[in-house]
Amino acid sequence: MIDQLIQKIKETNNPTVVGLDPRINFVPSQIKEEMYDTYGKTTEAVAKAYLAFNKAIIDEVHDLIPAVKPQVAMYEQLGAVGLQAYIDTIAYAKEKDLVVIGDIKRSDIASTAQSYADGHIGLVDIDGEKVEVYKEDFITLNPFLGIDSVEPYFKACKERNKGLFLLVKTSNPNSGQIQDLKVNGQYLYEYVGGLVSQWGEEMIGEYGFSKVGAVVGATYKEQGIQLRKQMPHTFFLVPGYGAQGATAEDLAGTFNEEGLGSIVNSSRGIIAAYAKEAYKEFGEKDYAKASRQAVIDMKEDLNRVL
Amino acid sequence: MIDQLIQKIKETNNPTVVGLDPRINFVPSQIKEEMYDTYGKTTEAVAKAYLAFNKAIIDEVHDLIPAVKPQVAMYEQLGAVGLQAYIDTIAYAKEKDLVVIGDIKRSDIASTAQSYADGHIGLVDIDGEKVEVYKEDFITLNPFLGIDSVEPYFKACKERNKGLFLLVKTSNPNSGQIQDLKVNGQYLYEYVGGLVSQWGEEMIGEYGFSKVGAVVGATYKEQGIQLRKQMPHTFFLVPGYGAQGATAEDLAGTFNEEGLGSIVNSSRGIIAAYAKEAYKEFGEKDYAKASRQAVIDMKEDLNRVL
Repeated sequence: MIDQLIQKIKETNNPTVVGLDPRINFVPSQIKEEMYDTYGKTTEAVAKAYLAFNKAIIDEVHDLIPAVKPQVAMYEQLGAVGLQAYIDTIAYAKEKDLVVIGDIKRSDIASTAQSYADGHIGLVDIDGEKVEVYKEDFITLNPFLGIDSVEPYFKACKERNKGLFLLVKTSNPNSGQIQDLKVNGQYLYEYVGGLVSQWGEEMIGEYGFSKVGAVVGATYKEQGIQLRKQMPHTFFLVPGYGAQGATAEDLAGTFNEEGLGSIVNSSRGIIAAYAKEAYKEFGEKDYAKASRQAVIDMKEDLNRVL
Repeated sequence: MIDQLIQKIKETNNPTVVGLDPRINFVPSQIKEEMYDTYGKTTEAVAKAYLAFNKAIIDEVHDLIPAVKPQVAMYEQLGAVGLQAYIDTIAYAKEKDLVVIGDIKRSDIASTAQSYADGHIGLVDIDGEKVEVYKEDFITLNPFLGIDSVEPYFKACKERNKGLFLLVKTSNPNSGQIQDLKVNGQYLYEYVGGLVSQWGEEMIGEYGFSKVGAVVGATYKEQGIQLRKQMPHTFFLVPGYGAQGATAEDLAGTFNEEGLGSIVNSSRGIIAAYAKEAYKEFGEKDYAKASRQAVIDMKEDLNRVL
């Protein structure tokens, strides 16, 4: 799937992934009110509103982007109805030929990790009946528990053409509290980066990038430059652009000299664009059109530095 | 809730938490067949089977134990119907007056962490309508992203009397790959342990333990002894006993001189006891009675070393 992702980035000339992280206060009132009228102020209403919100955005932007990244927390917090909206969002995005990165950041070991792997990117075996449940193309994982927390996912990567993005240097202000500790003369994130590239060595595709990628925050410019050098065969998922404060210049160094190597996430900046001054003219009603314009502007902004 | 947990450990004289981690091959054939007959070999059948399986075990063991720990991965892998079985399992355990530790090991930051916090241990605000979704008493979290990934949960701990167990030294064979790296003259797990006790300082209850606990694997005896000394006010959730190979002697050092300080998990060893040689006499039909006997035996085994 890493080859398909890169192919789509080339086709769209746009290394952008749209983060589908809806929140109640992002959803335009016309959608919320319709759902509240039918379901009351319930988790079900919110879940249905998120799905409708996502679908309209996907309809408007799918031709411009290679991928979407739903953040499972926003759906999971609503319980079972929320998780169904997550699954339905993935299905809809795949119908529109988008690559789907499930931002799940799971961290567990052995049979537990295997359960996540089977559900999200593999097959659940129900006494011989094999069922595909979530159908993401990629998922994010937290590797703090070591290889035991990552290896159970490799079979699905190899046999079902799936991929992973493992946390290496995250975009949050205090990511350095643990990730920037010095171990054996290097930073912990460099050490983890070394593990991630090693784990991915045997899964390198036709563009020279592995199915095992890394999450590298745009908010840490120098670290991004250094990790790109250290990990030439690892594709990066880069959060932190826009709402979290990073600019195109900050993340330019996570790309290689061919202009490949990263896919940059924007969530709020795209899906809630209509609420920003710059896109106010679209209004709440045309929120998806505002998202389309925000994608076009982000594409231009990224291509300016590549 | 840490006080209630310790109170219940004292009342039952049993620092055991039963891990409700069902798997398809654990569920006795009489339950599976009933569900397959009604729902076919579907995720729905498995989810209903898990709930029925859990309920019967809870019925048999609830008077003997302080707490249960459902592992969300087993349910999540089944999609929305699975997550509903997770929620229903929690509700049933709470009806039976058990403390519920949701083993979710989430790891995310900012508004994403807040979404998990609101859903699992807080309230989801639907335009003024506050909804409680999962209702765990405690959840497990992965702190690799630093304070940004933990702080969003503190409000629910303080205001809604909830608790956390943060990964410090996990039970898996390769946990040392990252957690045993040397940082500033100490091991990373010690450093993380230091952060965890510091984060929990302002939430210490009447027994001297904080609402912010730690996960410390029973499979690492020396590290458990040392962390107990280093973290006198941090309660430990201790996995690794039984199926993962650790003995009561291995984990004895995670308790303090009053015999408090840890709650020891057993999953397979209890819920799939009927499949073990020692409990074979119960047979598949009386699987829950086999679980009861396994709880009694584990209680005795732990109390032997305390």
